[in-house]
Amino acid sequence: MARAEETSDQLCAAYPVRGGDGPSSYAVNSVYQRGAVAAAKEFISKAIEEKLDMEILLSSKTFHIADLGCAVGPNSFFSAENIIEAVELKYKSQGLNSQTLEFQVFFNDITANDFNKLFRSLPSNRQYYAAGVPGSFYGRLFPNASIDLFHSAFAIPWMSQVPKAVMDRNSPAWNKGRIFYSDASDEVVSAYEAQNAEDMERFLHARAQEIVSGGLMVFFIPGRPDGTPHSHTLPNVIYQILGSCLMDLARKGVVDEEKVDSFNIPNYLMSSKELENAVERNGCFSIERRENLDHFFAHDTVYKSPQLLASQIRASLEGLFKQQFGDEILDELFELYGKKLEEQQSMVESGKAVVFLVVLRRTAN
Amino acid sequence: MARAEETSDQLCAAYPVRGGDGPSSYAVNSVYQRGAVAAAKEFISKAIEEKLDMEILLSSKTFHIADLGCAVGPNSFFSAENIIEAVELKYKSQGLNSQTLEFQVFFNDITANDFNKLFRSLPSNRQYYAAGVPGSFYGRLFPNASIDLFHSAFAIPWMSQVPKAVMDRNSPAWNKGRIFYSDASDEVVSAYEAQNAEDMERFLHARAQEIVSGGLMVFFIPGRPDGTPHSHTLPNVIYQILGSCLMDLARKGVVDEEKVDSFNIPNYLMSSKELENAVERNGCFSIERRENLDHFFAHDTVYKSPQLLASQIRASLEGLFKQQFGDEILDELFELYGKKLEEQQSMVESGKAVVFLVVLRRTAN
Repeated sequence: MARAEETSDQLCAAYPVRGGDGPSSYAVNSVYQRGAVAAAKEFISKAIEEKLDMEILLSSKTFHIADLGCAVGPNSFFSAENIIEAVELKYKSQGLNSQTLEFQVFFNDITANDFNKLFRSLPSNRQYYAAGVPGSFYGRLFPNASIDLFHSAFAIPWMSQVPKAVMDRNSPAWNKGRIFYSDASDEVVSAYEAQNAEDMERFLHARAQEIVSGGLMVFFIPGRPDGTPHSHTLPNVIYQILGSCLMDLARKGVVDEEKVDSFNIPNYLMSSKELENAVERNGCFSIERRENLDHFFAHDTVYKSPQLLASQIRASLEGLFKQQFGDEILDELFELYGKKLEEQQSMVESGKAVVFLVVLRRTAN
Repeated sequence: MARAEETSDQLCAAYPVRGGDGPSSYAVNSVYQRGAVAAAKEFISKAIEEKLDMEILLSSKTFHIADLGCAVGPNSFFSAENIIEAVELKYKSQGLNSQTLEFQVFFNDITANDFNKLFRSLPSNRQYYAAGVPGSFYGRLFPNASIDLFHSAFAIPWMSQVPKAVMDRNSPAWNKGRIFYSDASDEVVSAYEAQNAEDMERFLHARAQEIVSGGLMVFFIPGRPDGTPHSHTLPNVIYQILGSCLMDLARKGVVDEEKVDSFNIPNYLMSSKELENAVERNGCFSIERRENLDHFFAHDTVYKSPQLLASQIRASLEGLFKQQFGDEILDELFELYGKKLEEQQSMVESGKAVVFLVVLRRTAN
């Protein structure tokens, strides 16, 4: 039988989103993600209405949903409710009694995620059986053919690991003095591209085994608009500026420069072509629906407020930074970051961004 | 569809076992439970070899196991491995290839349990897909007919709540000056008995829906030996002495006496008759096998070491006591407890105890 894969999980474990309830916690700062989820509720509903096979609904009295990269809620709960509502509607529309249908929702994230926080904030009036599944989604998480619908919002850009070459000082891809690929040498970019391709292969391979034949996967993937260079893509701009703050602190002696050299953010924004290629190479899924949310980020007021943006980025990256640089630099780093974001406001506002909304269907074996 | 029940969970949430890794944490102090699990490995193996229907094994490529009251491991992992080993053996004994069989293990405990600790200590070489399920086992936790085998070790005596009457100063069952039923008035004992009967009804009713037809439940339930009064039952003796320590602290003014009056340990030790009655009343299960481990506690060296025993009881009850009395009394309380256990060593050693090992099978609907 399959052995649960933990390798990538160990690597992923380096950067859980921040748990707890504090002002810079993920739950408080996930407004940005929630905006997207709300905007995309219609996408989920239509996907299920138009693309979900009735056969799947009729083959079992329980509909199994898995959310990959759930963090600590609450967006994950919101998505689960949207999916369940749409499935029940579809069920009823066929004249069936949805009272007989049960739902089980698996909330997945890396083992280092704060599952205690997630479990304690589960909605008390939820209409589903909840379970938490710890582990990297780049490996197997579920038994064969046990999930009817996979969902993932904003988690797929997180890679299984930093590409090894960018941390190797003997490699041409060594990413000295930077913490990200998009303002780096071509070799660094290639190393990230290759890691992403490998990750997507592992991701889709695992899901292809776990999902039922005909099952759907609904993903919201922040990506890179076609024709936009990496360095002009909005999230990348934001990471680049954070990298320059770290280098400022290194020059001041607050941070060890070698620690900056050996630190890279394991996040990659695919183009639509890269996404399509990954699905094609895997060969087990058809792309049933695709939409681009082009202007989502542009309308998000967070990008007009440097302080809010800084605190949001802090919430999502704090665990990662703490592990490499220690607790004590965080306040200084993110204060400087807020200032720099303000100075470079026009660069942030001109950053290009897109969120890919995709529905994949498992083709017959 | 079913709504996940949380009421009893909220009440149960008052007394999670202690998480973390400290010297008085549950993981360190669960040697006592582990002894039983090891002693009972053979019971599990035989139960599966002799009582598990091959039909269940052949009906699905995944065998679903749920452990109720898993705490933070490691005994729960040990049990899961024993069960899987036995199921694979049975599968192979029929000439089948066990490589094609997958296992999913659901680890359940109340929402306040430290699931982070549990997840982080999952064996990395495990041969199963793991999931955590938060919530009280006195309510529904799983979809209909989704579990092939339930397991629970040492958790069932924990009640869904303290009987309301024992905390009501206007009730004849008000348990003033005590924290447990076994040294209390008949009214208090009756209130505990009634709560246990209600709990067992809810427990078996929920499991009867969740388990597949023909599925097995293997339980290890510390109980009260037939003919032994409540007050002579070993775990009860241990709780009574703890209660007397609390009253000593109340007399010294360290603890508010009213807080002792309103505090009761929600734990009840059934007799074999009470257990049989509960199964009979529920009507959905047959008792396939029953053994009594009479001498288990008697041979456990922990009962010969008052200090070790005190630290073990502290590990299992600390959460409960902290919530009612605050952190600051714990050291003094358990130091006094160690001393009193030493003084009353002969009373402890003469306490009677039994662990019921039972296998129940879901009869056809």
